Amino acid sequence: MADIYMDNASGTRLSEDVFEAMKPYFLEDYGNPSSIHKYGLAAKEAIEDARAKVAALIGADPGEIYFTSCGSESNNLAVKGAAWAGRKKGKHIVLSSIEHHSVMHAAKAMTRLGWEMTVVAVDGNGFIDQDALISAIREDTTLVSVLHASNEIGTIQPLKEIAARVKAKGVPFHSDAIQTVGVIPVDVNDLGVDILSLAANSFYGPKGVAALYIRKGTRVFSLIDGGIQERGRRAGTENVPAIVGLGKAAELALPAIESRMAHLTPLREKLMSGLVSVIPKLYVNGDQEKRLPGNVHASIEAIEGESMLFSLGAKGIMAASGSSCADKALKSSHVLAAIGVEPALANASLLFTLGMDNTDADVDTVLEMLPPIVERLRNMSPLWNG
Amino acid sequence: MADIYMDNASGTRLSEDVFEAMKPYFLEDYGNPSSIHKYGLAAKEAIEDARAKVAALIGADPGEIYFTSCGSESNNLAVKGAAWAGRKKGKHIVLSSIEHHSVMHAAKAMTRLGWEMTVVAVDGNGFIDQDALISAIREDTTLVSVLHASNEIGTIQPLKEIAARVKAKGVPFHSDAIQTVGVIPVDVNDLGVDILSLAANSFYGPKGVAALYIRKGTRVFSLIDGGIQERGRRAGTENVPAIVGLGKAAELALPAIESRMAHLTPLREKLMSGLVSVIPKLYVNGDQEKRLPGNVHASIEAIEGESMLFSLGAKGIMAASGSSCADKALKSSHVLAAIGVEPALANASLLFTLGMDNTDADVDTVLEMLPPIVERLRNMSPLWNG
Repeated sequence: MADIYMDNASGTRLSEDVFEAMKPYFLEDYGNPSSIHKYGLAAKEAIEDARAKVAALIGADPGEIYFTSCGSESNNLAVKGAAWAGRKKGKHIVLSSIEHHSVMHAAKAMTRLGWEMTVVAVDGNGFIDQDALISAIREDTTLVSVLHASNEIGTIQPLKEIAARVKAKGVPFHSDAIQTVGVIPVDVNDLGVDILSLAANSFYGPKGVAALYIRKGTRVFSLIDGGIQERGRRAGTENVPAIVGLGKAAELALPAIESRMAHLTPLREKLMSGLVSVIPKLYVNGDQEKRLPGNVHASIEAIEGESMLFSLGAKGIMAASGSSCADKALKSSHVLAAIGVEPALANASLLFTLGMDNTDADVDTVLEMLPPIVERLRNMSPLWNG
Repeated sequence: MADIYMDNASGTRLSEDVFEAMKPYFLEDYGNPSSIHKYGLAAKEAIEDARAKVAALIGADPGEIYFTSCGSESNNLAVKGAAWAGRKKGKHIVLSSIEHHSVMHAAKAMTRLGWEMTVVAVDGNGFIDQDALISAIREDTTLVSVLHASNEIGTIQPLKEIAARVKAKGVPFHSDAIQTVGVIPVDVNDLGVDILSLAANSFYGPKGVAALYIRKGTRVFSLIDGGIQERGRRAGTENVPAIVGLGKAAELALPAIESRMAHLTPLREKLMSGLVSVIPKLYVNGDQEKRLPGNVHASIEAIEGESMLFSLGAKGIMAASGSSCADKALKSSHVLAAIGVEPALANASLLFTLGMDNTDADVDTVLEMLPPIVERLRNMSPLWNG
């Protein structure tokens, strides 16, 4: 039986078309974009072309796009860079309780250097408490960060509304949109964000490249200093093939977002409702409707998530038990804790993130394979008295 | 006429064998190394295999190798990470006057956050003043950074001697070895360094990947926080294909370093002595003997470096006018200033960095093409009264 990959939040498969676009920049146009000979100029042109494509995907100006090496770097650049740039005004950061680790831990790192952070709660579906968020903003707050959609529970925040309220307080607003850019429509001007993180590997682009949108006039210190690549905001020889890949992935995504959503959403609905109906005491986490098109997150009473993963893996079905970064970092997910899932149930979680390769038949297979696995594991569990 | 690429310090051509090794990790084994299904485990295994190969190249333990996205990130992680980790002891950094911008500007960035830096002079050949270096170390010094070899003038420091003297003062010692690892023999234990930067693109590996060696027990804070990738020292989904490429490049370099040096050194000697003999008032910069095997750096009186570059470029010869990162950042190189080259002469510089593709015939071509270019440009120059 063919493999079924349902771990797209950890990384999508690279598109063949994207790889074809990248290829010439490995062996042929291998120049350094800072070099002023023809190989260098060809590389420089390629990254500026990619910048324009990424800008178009989110309605930004190319001059507001800064390439980085991964989503975590983009988030660190946003959080630390904005904090450092604002240090004379104050040293206080506000963020949601369900931020990705690369936002949460970047903020925590700043607390070791004298900053304070306020973590704002979310409700049971994962929506941030907007009144609490606004109340948390102080005179010395220099950044508010709220992710666009959770890589774990899939809930999509009403970001435009949140941004408007934060901006009314005059504080720079960052959003980690790594799970949404290239997946659902994202327009930085419509949303009203100042800083926004995105990553290629969320929408069939390569690993090793991401970007940070920084609205003109927003102050962000660099994280990696050195040469003046990326207009001084990110030093280091550019990863040309990967940047070209991000550009190509953005170009392919822009006209395809609606059709991709139209492919994924029914599969998600089928899997979500199917799981609830075939497995007793299974609870879907996150908002039922305002969620990422390919995201299905469920907790299954009385079973260890990893045991389910291994059993599914043995059948060729690849899923996750939570954030891929959290898998080994934590026994329990901070996101599930934030929405009030009890630790035992949180550790009994499965995350299926669907991609364009997945079919209706794949969903049928999961719905057929999972119940006997759950039953077998429950029969071995002292916690089960179903 | 075929192109002649002599800008290898800005980046080498990717080896076909390295690219072949990387390929499966683009379209087939595309899993996230943090995922605990088979695609993830395959990726995880591949990066651990690469780690062992990089460790072998520099005589380190695999557990002391941390992958990053580029040499500049490695240098920033070293300088900022060590400074932050040592902040309770003191806030003083010592470095040489010819460090790469990614070391120099990382240290400068720390001065904006309350640190002090002392820059130690070099002599006319680019060798650091060791007595001054040791005298610069204070009670509150928490890092000394001296590069192994200059990417501009090519001078190789007596690093073992320097490291021993710094270590005797009990201060952590970092070396930017981006120009030497994979090019000349480098052994971290023989050299006695605590922290060492290397990059794949210096030895026929891909862009977008580098590493930092951190000796066990040396404290370095992370620059990019988030998940626990790289044992918590560098968050972010790993750039698997690029890391595999770095590993392969290291594997290929280790047994080949002597033969590569044996290929490059005579070419360098021929080009260096040839230039001196065919062009009057041309001065070679850096030490004549203790220099990188492929490095030829010369200043040519009364000519603007960029004009020469463009003229060479028109003949298919690709070189540089200094550090690739400096090309557009500065009118004049801080390295040439440090060795006492006057600004006018500094701006009249050419940097040829030879690679394994270069042949004896290539050197002949340069020696044939350059003199008429120099003559033509000098005839147009008000500075020339040859």
